[in-house]
Amino acid sequence: MLYIPVSCTLLSKPTGFRDQLTTPDKTQYLISPDPTDPRLSTEVSGIDHTGNTQQTRVVHERALTLFLNSQEVVTIMTIGDHPELLAIGYLVNQNMLASHDDVTEVEYDEDLQVVVVRTGNETDFEEKMKKKVRTSGCAQGTVFGDIMESFDKIKLPPDAKFKTSWLYELTKKINTTPSLYLEAGAIHGCVLCEQDRPLVYMEDVGRHNAVDKIAGWMFTNKIEPGDKIFYTTGRLTSEMVIKTAMMGIPILVSRSGFTASGVELARQVGLTLIGRARGKRFLALAGKDRIEFDAQVDTNIEEEPGHARKGSQ
Amino acid sequence: MLYIPVSCTLLSKPTGFRDQLTTPDKTQYLISPDPTDPRLSTEVSGIDHTGNTQQTRVVHERALTLFLNSQEVVTIMTIGDHPELLAIGYLVNQNMLASHDDVTEVEYDEDLQVVVVRTGNETDFEEKMKKKVRTSGCAQGTVFGDIMESFDKIKLPPDAKFKTSWLYELTKKINTTPSLYLEAGAIHGCVLCEQDRPLVYMEDVGRHNAVDKIAGWMFTNKIEPGDKIFYTTGRLTSEMVIKTAMMGIPILVSRSGFTASGVELARQVGLTLIGRARGKRFLALAGKDRIEFDAQVDTNIEEEPGHARKGSQ
Repeated sequence: MLYIPVSCTLLSKPTGFRDQLTTPDKTQYLISPDPTDPRLSTEVSGIDHTGNTQQTRVVHERALTLFLNSQEVVTIMTIGDHPELLAIGYLVNQNMLASHDDVTEVEYDEDLQVVVVRTGNETDFEEKMKKKVRTSGCAQGTVFGDIMESFDKIKLPPDAKFKTSWLYELTKKINTTPSLYLEAGAIHGCVLCEQDRPLVYMEDVGRHNAVDKIAGWMFTNKIEPGDKIFYTTGRLTSEMVIKTAMMGIPILVSRSGFTASGVELARQVGLTLIGRARGKRFLALAGKDRIEFDAQVDTNIEEEPGHARKGSQ
Repeated sequence: MLYIPVSCTLLSKPTGFRDQLTTPDKTQYLISPDPTDPRLSTEVSGIDHTGNTQQTRVVHERALTLFLNSQEVVTIMTIGDHPELLAIGYLVNQNMLASHDDVTEVEYDEDLQVVVVRTGNETDFEEKMKKKVRTSGCAQGTVFGDIMESFDKIKLPPDAKFKTSWLYELTKKINTTPSLYLEAGAIHGCVLCEQDRPLVYMEDVGRHNAVDKIAGWMFTNKIEPGDKIFYTTGRLTSEMVIKTAMMGIPILVSRSGFTASGVELARQVGLTLIGRARGKRFLALAGKDRIEFDAQVDTNIEEEPGHARKGSQ
């Protein structure tokens, strides 16, 4: 059994992070997709609408089983990059790992496709989960119940700002970043941003995985969420709003649309919710007071060719 | 407690169905979306990119708890139409209800948002689920294991046909059908088709729900799957391929892309897998021998304006 101990690199204090943020080249990501990684996509052959043979790339999904100490938690279908960050982020976003929990080690076994998160003390969640298993099969329901209790206590900074000039700069940079989406399609992207700069761009087949990888990176590097912007290609559902608010990020942007409960929860918690962001157009359905309309919007507000993204539904 | 017994209407023999299929008006759906239903979407107010107030419609998600006899199975987030078909389809697609199981009643309580599927005898699944709950929290894993066993035994008809002229006629009809997607966006659609005719068009926030509602309709009406085509707006993942094959449908079409495991499973089971179907373009990555290229493809192969669909990601 091959264990790759990642604790030393992943869980070190983020000494260099502020330096990275203040480097002169502000266009550089701290983490961005690696579409050339051969483990993530593969070439397959088919025929097109004219009957001619065509080669195309498609992304892989792999099963990754997550343990918290000795407790098996879940098996996740994922493209397979950043398994350690995905594991930590999943636990954080499911409220199974709190900021005061001391993560001592994250072990990833590539052959077994298993990732084990170890904490100094057994966490609160493990006890709860063991008990739950004895009484009912529906553990997810209880977790959701717990999350809604925490959700009601969230305070997002009312003075956080969001400029329309940042939005237009961010979407232009994100849409032209080399990605698995541009390479193979059928994938979601989530990007953690600060002002007009995209910092961490994660992709995955399931949008919840992309979110969790960012949450894992933020937890590991102790990132301050109050001045961040969260961009997603996915729809603004209740799940997306809950996760963003739980992460402490006050602004959520998507090029896709809204669901009613997503809007309702965003209003309840005071999250700025911006959807249908394509070209210069967008629609804000919650928290509009944070928006500063500093960009000139001319009559040509469609997406420039090459910056558009087709649906990876 | 208000129970609406639906067994008499839902579970009657489909005497009129063949007649409907052979009526002169072949453009008519047997079931199509009802975007005017006030329970499904609601109007909310926000501001657009110019700072002006705008009204828009957003779809609701509701929790629906499903029981099989006395066993609670799952709580599903759904837009809430066709709860009985969703319940039956969920059980069928999770392999919890077999074609020989005798469904005696489906009770839907709108106030409690509970649906109970009753069978003549306790089904095989209930025993399995009770046992599973006693041993581990991860019931879903076992269900998936069972499904893969059944998947390996699937025989799809090799002589089923798929004409490109049908595809172009289908996508034109589907894209111009009044729908919640056109009304509010952020929703997936699945359509059961026969040749160039869309028969049953279901929508839901989760694509798996839209599939399950169609499976529920097919189970209830004892529909022959071997000459059908399944159209979806969602990506061609392993889950979509497994569900389509389990339903016995030999042809799966999407306007979205593929994942590697979706392609692999389609090839394994002999399913015709057609993706990226936009305008006259498409790409077939499995089962291409069923495709007959009978439509003329001219140089203008882009989608006509008004027939395009933006991503409800």
